[in-house]
Amino acid sequence: MPTNQDHIVSSYSDELATLAQLIAEMGGQVEVAIENGTKSLLKLDRELADLTIIADQRIDDMQRRIDDMAVSMIARRQPMASDLRAIITSIHVAADLERVGDMAKQLARRSLKLEGLSLQPTFYNGVKNMTGLVLRQIKDALDAYASRDAAASIEVCNRDDEVDAMHTSLFRELLTYMMEDPRNITPCTHLLFCAKNLERIGDHATNIAERAYYLQTGKQLTSDVQELHRTQIKA
Amino acid sequence: MPTNQDHIVSSYSDELATLAQLIAEMGGQVEVAIENGTKSLLKLDRELADLTIIADQRIDDMQRRIDDMAVSMIARRQPMASDLRAIITSIHVAADLERVGDMAKQLARRSLKLEGLSLQPTFYNGVKNMTGLVLRQIKDALDAYASRDAAASIEVCNRDDEVDAMHTSLFRELLTYMMEDPRNITPCTHLLFCAKNLERIGDHATNIAERAYYLQTGKQLTSDVQELHRTQIKA
Repeated sequence: MPTNQDHIVSSYSDELATLAQLIAEMGGQVEVAIENGTKSLLKLDRELADLTIIADQRIDDMQRRIDDMAVSMIARRQPMASDLRAIITSIHVAADLERVGDMAKQLARRSLKLEGLSLQPTFYNGVKNMTGLVLRQIKDALDAYASRDAAASIEVCNRDDEVDAMHTSLFRELLTYMMEDPRNITPCTHLLFCAKNLERIGDHATNIAERAYYLQTGKQLTSDVQELHRTQIKA
Repeated sequence: MPTNQDHIVSSYSDELATLAQLIAEMGGQVEVAIENGTKSLLKLDRELADLTIIADQRIDDMQRRIDDMAVSMIARRQPMASDLRAIITSIHVAADLERVGDMAKQLARRSLKLEGLSLQPTFYNGVKNMTGLVLRQIKDALDAYASRDAAASIEVCNRDDEVDAMHTSLFRELLTYMMEDPRNITPCTHLLFCAKNLERIGDHATNIAERAYYLQTGKQLTSDVQELHRTQIKA
């Protein structure tokens, strides 16, 4: 028969598990939002765009729930330093995810603005490739966070250079379309902002991975550690 | 002679005051960063740009200090619900300010990219006006937060519509310059992103004001309240 002490401990760890579960759920919703937001953009699908915009409210609600639960746990449980750090981190990760949801909403809104503007399919290629990469970054960052995997966290942070390089090259490509034909200026400007949104989603993935690394190791992820990891991978 | 109880209470309120002071200090640094970042942009001043980029590291450090202090206070003091909410809010406000510092850095970086590109002085007018408005928004939001002034918070949130309207009109204006002459495309694209950064600084000011409102009233700031306030002001 469980003692009273067991009961308290078990219910506390239940709460910690619930908090982790909420973050995972919110992460899942955010991944779907990125997929739908970019799909609405690539296919100019108004229904999917509306769906993504509405979904953002649910993501915002999730953030509030996680915030409230974290604060209430701290108030009632008075957790030890390491648990406290983990609970505060969940507040930060939820804030990052909320912002990613916002980016997905902005992608969906751009698709509504692009309707009716003539846009050659090739213009979209770069955005499409970038979407694949940042979606992977978010998934991997959330996995690293859930499993407290320091090595996986470093990989996400290192891969952010790829996202940035892709963004820079897409930026230049879109500028050339704009210079070729003034009619391309308005639609390509919207795509420039989409590319920027995707780049920022990549930054949020890095933030989450850095927090996962800190939770696991108790140390900030420095560029030295990232470089060392790169060398080891190549070796 | 102070009792032991007094001593504990006084030192706790000292810590709360220090936390508030740190936020005010960080706010001051961020205001300077916005001013310097935009000035470096408007005058293509490389030294000022470098200064703003370096200052961002100090702002990041401030966020970590506020974070650590907040977590340590929660762990040691086990604050009551209302104090706990205030301490957690300082974590959120510091996160908003850190992002504003990031925007200022991005403005400074753009100034380095704009060097050597021919840019007519009139192109800058919109950016200049927008800077004045968002700087006021950040200042007023921080004042509302420091003084827990609910009415002032509502005013900041309502004024965000002005920021958005200014951004939309600037966006269109810059597009026309780009269409007039392909040589304007690259520099004006950079200015489009500067305008977007300023708009986002405005959003962070709104976030801070919303949190100030919540701390003071215990309620979320809804659009109904904002509308009511607007009607009362006009009456």
